[in-house]
Amino acid sequence: MNAEKIPDIIIGRLPVYLRALQRMADSGLKTTSSQELGEHVGISAAQIRKDISQFGEFGKQGTGYSIQFLLDKLREILKVDRIWDIALVGAGDIGHALVNYQGFKDRGFHIVMIFDNDKGKIGHKIGNFTVEDAVTDKLVQAGVKAILNYAPINLNTPTHVKVQYIDPATHLQRMTYYL
Amino acid sequence: MNAEKIPDIIIGRLPVYLRALQRMADSGLKTTSSQELGEHVGISAAQIRKDISQFGEFGKQGTGYSIQFLLDKLREILKVDRIWDIALVGAGDIGHALVNYQGFKDRGFHIVMIFDNDKGKIGHKIGNFTVEDAVTDKLVQAGVKAILNYAPINLNTPTHVKVQYIDPATHLQRMTYYL
Repeated sequence: MNAEKIPDIIIGRLPVYLRALQRMADSGLKTTSSQELGEHVGISAAQIRKDISQFGEFGKQGTGYSIQFLLDKLREILKVDRIWDIALVGAGDIGHALVNYQGFKDRGFHIVMIFDNDKGKIGHKIGNFTVEDAVTDKLVQAGVKAILNYAPINLNTPTHVKVQYIDPATHLQRMTYYL
Repeated sequence: MNAEKIPDIIIGRLPVYLRALQRMADSGLKTTSSQELGEHVGISAAQIRKDISQFGEFGKQGTGYSIQFLLDKLREILKVDRIWDIALVGAGDIGHALVNYQGFKDRGFHIVMIFDNDKGKIGHKIGNFTVEDAVTDKLVQAGVKAILNYAPINLNTPTHVKVQYIDPATHLQRMTYYL
């Protein structure tokens, strides 16, 4: 496997498979098929088989996939078989929501610090954290390698810093096309 | 143009182009090129030309795209040349964040009602809204056609109801692959 050659569109589907497989495991299932997984995530069985086969031979013709084995492999591929420290920048409503978000648990992420540039918020507590002063450029200088951006602005970062955007308007606009 | 035949992956990029073009227009630009747009959104010029050409001949060789014309066309294609009423379900931190979110303004969306199934929240005010009682199944029965889901659960909905998921863990896992 050559990590550099796998298209990003495939990488983007792996966390979706991971989430669905975890849910199956939680409900006591041991094995699954590309067909069954496909029904859970709304992606064709053929596409799922093709995506997964990029990383090796993880299933058996006729018996399908061992859910636990596939979970372990996907976590290893996505590097969430470890815990990533997260610095949260922005102590507003979304910041509060993320601190309380149950979906990070057991999925490889752990919030360790909270920053804001609002003098009125610095020093205040959110959960167990004290909000600290921050400027995004300084975080990049400090070695941050990936940013999940909730703000409706584009970030200018060096090419080695990965940025993903969560913008509810963009997600809604993708659906209105079909209405 | 046959709407049914355009791959969803292309539809998903159109709101990203729309956002970048709006920012260019706001900063006073009148025309752009697939090259320049590509630098803003991190997608190749060739891919952008291919995506846009699915819907017609919107640019001119040598002179590029009129930003306003392309904005109008993209809004028409994505059906955000009108205002969509949004019912917000869940009056927690994310619900508050969405009510205060500035990114919906002028982008086709307008929150009109807020629901929650928590008896302690029903009747309370968020901004100008009073929180009302709700169950998702009832919303579908009432004719809701698209759902943007922030909860880390899969929704079982009829096939005619579109669902998009915003799950920060999934977005983070897509980046850890590259770290």
